[in-house]
Amino acid sequence: MSEDERLARATISLVAEPGDLRALGLARQLGPGEFLAVLRDHADLRESFTAAAARLATVDPARVLERAAARGIRFVVPGDEEWPDQLDDLAGAGALHERGDVPVGLWVRGPGRLDQLAGAVAVVGSRTSTTYGDEVAGDVAAVVGAAGRAVVSGGAFGIDYAAHRGALSAGAPTVAVLACGVDRVYPTAHRPLFDHLAEHHAIVSEAPPGSAPFRIRFLARNRLIAALTRGTVVVEAALRSGALNTASWAERLSRVVMGTPGPLTSASSEGVHQLLRRGGAALVTGGADVLELVGAAGEALVDEPRAPEAPRDRLSVRARQVVDAVPTSAPAPSASVARVAGLGVAEVDQVLRALASEGLVEQLPTGWRLTERGRR
Amino acid sequence: MSEDERLARATISLVAEPGDLRALGLARQLGPGEFLAVLRDHADLRESFTAAAARLATVDPARVLERAAARGIRFVVPGDEEWPDQLDDLAGAGALHERGDVPVGLWVRGPGRLDQLAGAVAVVGSRTSTTYGDEVAGDVAAVVGAAGRAVVSGGAFGIDYAAHRGALSAGAPTVAVLACGVDRVYPTAHRPLFDHLAEHHAIVSEAPPGSAPFRIRFLARNRLIAALTRGTVVVEAALRSGALNTASWAERLSRVVMGTPGPLTSASSEGVHQLLRRGGAALVTGGADVLELVGAAGEALVDEPRAPEAPRDRLSVRARQVVDAVPTSAPAPSASVARVAGLGVAEVDQVLRALASEGLVEQLPTGWRLTERGRR
Repeated sequence: MSEDERLARATISLVAEPGDLRALGLARQLGPGEFLAVLRDHADLRESFTAAAARLATVDPARVLERAAARGIRFVVPGDEEWPDQLDDLAGAGALHERGDVPVGLWVRGPGRLDQLAGAVAVVGSRTSTTYGDEVAGDVAAVVGAAGRAVVSGGAFGIDYAAHRGALSAGAPTVAVLACGVDRVYPTAHRPLFDHLAEHHAIVSEAPPGSAPFRIRFLARNRLIAALTRGTVVVEAALRSGALNTASWAERLSRVVMGTPGPLTSASSEGVHQLLRRGGAALVTGGADVLELVGAAGEALVDEPRAPEAPRDRLSVRARQVVDAVPTSAPAPSASVARVAGLGVAEVDQVLRALASEGLVEQLPTGWRLTERGRR
Repeated sequence: MSEDERLARATISLVAEPGDLRALGLARQLGPGEFLAVLRDHADLRESFTAAAARLATVDPARVLERAAARGIRFVVPGDEEWPDQLDDLAGAGALHERGDVPVGLWVRGPGRLDQLAGAVAVVGSRTSTTYGDEVAGDVAAVVGAAGRAVVSGGAFGIDYAAHRGALSAGAPTVAVLACGVDRVYPTAHRPLFDHLAEHHAIVSEAPPGSAPFRIRFLARNRLIAALTRGTVVVEAALRSGALNTASWAERLSRVVMGTPGPLTSASSEGVHQLLRRGGAALVTGGADVLELVGAAGEALVDEPRAPEAPRDRLSVRARQVVDAVPTSAPAPSASVARVAGLGVAEVDQVLRALASEGLVEQLPTGWRLTERGRR
């Protein structure tokens, strides 16, 4: 990667909006240097990029890179060893809300390396989550993290925060992808979290340092969360949640889309239920389900949850018919048991002896009755 | 339908267990009279049907029918106008837990006609339901009932009870299919409900009057609930719930299998989540979803739930970029808005004027700011 190209990419990052489909698409097709030359010289193309072209004269990318580096912020671009190749899936993946394509680079703060996110899992959801949702998100992130996969989320209140906390509780790497610059703290209440991520993990943004968290940038940001990870879990989302936009990106990029259900009475789960109802998203009941779905085939198969087995469960239908006909307190002769069971006496006698050897029934002088074990 | 055949069918009902695959299969293939003749005369076949053959001598079907009729209980058999033809799907549908095939007849108490269950919906679930589950079951049954479809369930505590209550609250027909005789009240606390159903709707069983509610009979009963209805909704089920057996039958019979999600923290929803996770069952969020799935194509399409639309939602991405850059309190000149938005001044001026005409921004002597409507 030449320094010229890195500088050209930083320039584009400074003059074009994150996820600007036209600018990024053209920059990708022409190459960043050629795109900037066009932006400078071709009046006809400049019309489509008025703002970007106007900004060209005002930015000083070398100085921005230098000042960023001084503050521990690096600009990772395609071709760098650290570049997460999975982002290239965004090329030609179209747009949602007019945002799309591969970013020209990512601004990163913190020691976490982006090329280690290939098996990561995104855990996203509502800012206005419930205690239930926070618990579910934290549990999912902790299980995913404990299995050695990084967690990726945004930096917002609610599910994002719970996901990072869950990953950290498992000692796992976790990465926040922001809509604003990686040097901004939004919301400000998350300063301790962001400080921790910047020191031990990573904070990532497509927008250059100093950028404000405009709403439109969240839509651009969501595609990065989906593209960086192998699967996206939506934990609580109202009908208009940005998390559903992330899920749409994940689906479009052929990532695994997952959702955790909640009470039908909770508006915070409505968006997830809609996602699950429409198909395309898999219902997951926890981190183990997530690992099964994002894992390579056979890598992490979930044990189907099973109810504890009762002694009766192992019996044949015939034997259960007999057990059902044996009284619990006053003993009954085998002829009576046979009548109640609707079976022949000889057969019932045989079954009763087998059941007695398993400790499910006992024979008293006056007949048969269930043991305590048989009553279970 | 000849009285001879009805009598033969009643005889089989009295000597064979509900859902006895071998007996019912043979009775269906040979015809009921011929099956009884074989049972009486062929020593080699009698070996397989020891109990049934032994009982033959002891039963008096004519008297049972007569006494049942005197108590308002009728025996509905294939060929009767009231016979629900959808039960014939059980022929050759195999067995679960060795129970299966078409019943030889159904014992019915109450004025509700079984041939009116073709579009009915089964609402089943845990006996040990939560308040949440009871609410969901009641709501689903009420919506389904209000749409003119009968509800079918068992007679147990919990979801069964809530489903009947929900249907009744909508003035809709509801039918209880029991594992015991239709004259038995099990559980006894449901006497008022059963009395009401017997007077206004219907109570149904494959087992003859007087039969006890043996566990094995619940497995036979479940196939009837699934077969009688167009779809089965499971509302809360633990991992070992009988409702999952009903769902398996519904799937096997190509009925619509549905489940309502609940909190992941609730054991009462674990079985439903497992069902939804494995596929084969559709997640439904209420009666409207159920109606859409069981309805004929296009008959009852659900309006996708939508969050209320905010004024900003109708804007183009470009216009939203501008709105995002307009301050909420201290007005800013359009050049400043353009800089923040990353767009050209001329373009921003144009957009601002359009936004002002929609009442989203206002122009003051010192510049532009958002209106209250624009802040929403």
